[in-house]
Amino acid sequence: MSSVNDPSGALVVGVDSGGSGLRIALAEAAGGAVLDTRSSREPVPTGPGGISAGHFLDQVLPAVRSLTEPHGSRPVVAVAVGAAGMATLGDELRAELPGALAEAWGVRRLALAADAVTAYAGALGQRPGAVVAGGTGMIALGTDLRSWRRADGWGHLLGDCGSGAWIGRAGLEAAMRAYDGRRGGSAALLARAERLFGPVAGLPGALYPRTDRPAVLASFAPEVGRCAAEDPVAADILARAAGHIAEAAEAACPDGPGASVALTGGLFKLGDPLLVPLRAALGELVPRAGTVEPAGDPLSGAVALAAALATGTLRLPEDPALLRLFVENAPRAASSAQVGGGA
Amino acid sequence: MSSVNDPSGALVVGVDSGGSGLRIALAEAAGGAVLDTRSSREPVPTGPGGISAGHFLDQVLPAVRSLTEPHGSRPVVAVAVGAAGMATLGDELRAELPGALAEAWGVRRLALAADAVTAYAGALGQRPGAVVAGGTGMIALGTDLRSWRRADGWGHLLGDCGSGAWIGRAGLEAAMRAYDGRRGGSAALLARAERLFGPVAGLPGALYPRTDRPAVLASFAPEVGRCAAEDPVAADILARAAGHIAEAAEAACPDGPGASVALTGGLFKLGDPLLVPLRAALGELVPRAGTVEPAGDPLSGAVALAAALATGTLRLPEDPALLRLFVENAPRAASSAQVGGGA
Repeated sequence: MSSVNDPSGALVVGVDSGGSGLRIALAEAAGGAVLDTRSSREPVPTGPGGISAGHFLDQVLPAVRSLTEPHGSRPVVAVAVGAAGMATLGDELRAELPGALAEAWGVRRLALAADAVTAYAGALGQRPGAVVAGGTGMIALGTDLRSWRRADGWGHLLGDCGSGAWIGRAGLEAAMRAYDGRRGGSAALLARAERLFGPVAGLPGALYPRTDRPAVLASFAPEVGRCAAEDPVAADILARAAGHIAEAAEAACPDGPGASVALTGGLFKLGDPLLVPLRAALGELVPRAGTVEPAGDPLSGAVALAAALATGTLRLPEDPALLRLFVENAPRAASSAQVGGGA
Repeated sequence: MSSVNDPSGALVVGVDSGGSGLRIALAEAAGGAVLDTRSSREPVPTGPGGISAGHFLDQVLPAVRSLTEPHGSRPVVAVAVGAAGMATLGDELRAELPGALAEAWGVRRLALAADAVTAYAGALGQRPGAVVAGGTGMIALGTDLRSWRRADGWGHLLGDCGSGAWIGRAGLEAAMRAYDGRRGGSAALLARAERLFGPVAGLPGALYPRTDRPAVLASFAPEVGRCAAEDPVAADILARAAGHIAEAAEAACPDGPGASVALTGGLFKLGDPLLVPLRAALGELVPRAGTVEPAGDPLSGAVALAAALATGTLRLPEDPALLRLFVENAPRAASSAQVGGGA
């Protein structure tokens, strides 16, 4: 077993597991510089016990083996895994991963994180603030480094207000309103909906039987963005989305000065039609925080978590639903743990 | 074969087939007075060809046999069937029902109607106007007796604005906002959501895997209604719902004076918290139409359609998606058809 008393030689692994696949990075424990990465387009399946630990390990272990091979005897001392649905779906992973990693490489430090936490660590590192992760869904996560504050992320029926699914759904509603001759309709959005999906009278039959309804809705969000310059209905949808996103950032962001807000994820590729009203809304609702560009992505966040765990410098707070640490001999106080070399 | 030249003896059958079961009424062809009814709590299943014609006939034929038995030799001359999803799901029924009814009793006049049409005929009879049918979903249907105008009814993701699912969803969003500490939250709705569904952090996991999500959402609408007197967030949800419902009525209602608007369905059992703002919104958006109490329910509408078909007095317009008529020897002009007795 290596000791992080010798961090110059120690390595860490960060894993980002999401709906679109798995990405794995090998990095220096000291400093967190990434040495190499692997990725797989095959998402890890989820079963009744959550993310399948067997499938996960089947993908991760060989990838890490091939990543570490060129680095001879340098030991992997910490692993951090960020995964969508970790909070609610990670029971099996939590039960099996620590033992499996200890057995495979003697890894004694493991972090299991919700994807919003790796997004946070990637975007803001270990500073206090709030990160809004937006894509098909939308969640804001903030911390004052004592506890986490989460806002939204409740899915397309209960929330995700301002997300890609939310914007796309509102755009399609405006298309149907135009089709019906109801108020609030947009002929421009109707034309784009028919171009994308065919005659809109067939849209209910095409949408409702699908299991990826939120993704189908979100696929219309870029069309709303493209209409916004000329179409007041589309512009209003994006202005309302911006307001909802800022409300989530406001709720998640710690009080007091010195906090930063970062926006991360594909949602913000909608560009100015969303970002201009969003900057205005953030300035109004979260004036205490400065908005910064995210420093990195969720994979770099997983690496940062693993490196901090390896070097005993983790400041982001543990949380049963968001960030679980498994550190041998010091499971509850990793951030201030003495670095132990024992068995 | 009977002739409607002798309407005093002729009988008609109306059928209302929906998600909560099947109701069947036997009535006088002349006048449409209902003689007796049967009902079944077992909904007719839908398959790939839509409503299963076999299941439908298995339930309807014995019920009609038992209804007609006490009436000796009086013939059934017309049948009208109103069914949820008839427009999009009724292919099999359209193909098989006319032949089956002709074979069973020599019935030569059949109307297949969308449930919104039987709701219309039940509420307004054959007058011009618009009917808003609200429950879990919401659709407005209007006619000037030349053609139909439909507004909304697009389901819980594309529309049904102001429906039970819409109100319940908005109420649960307000509960989650309160849970998060976001703006727009309602502590009262949060308390009611937790009473109904348990801790709301578990709500996504309880809701999304279900197949009856719109019904689950709609089950929270009465709670929004109960909160409205004291809770401004709940009151605002119902005011917005009222606006959406009035917008649908406005789009569906024919132009010019003399039209009536009727509200029908379980949604309006929410009572004053919805009806007070709805009356105000209708007064503003559809001042040309008077709001009237619905005369009857969709089953009475099916009976009225069948009676009108039997006596050659049908004024409601045919429409391939809403009202299909099958009249032997005069399939395209039933409303002005000569009454023919020939085979």
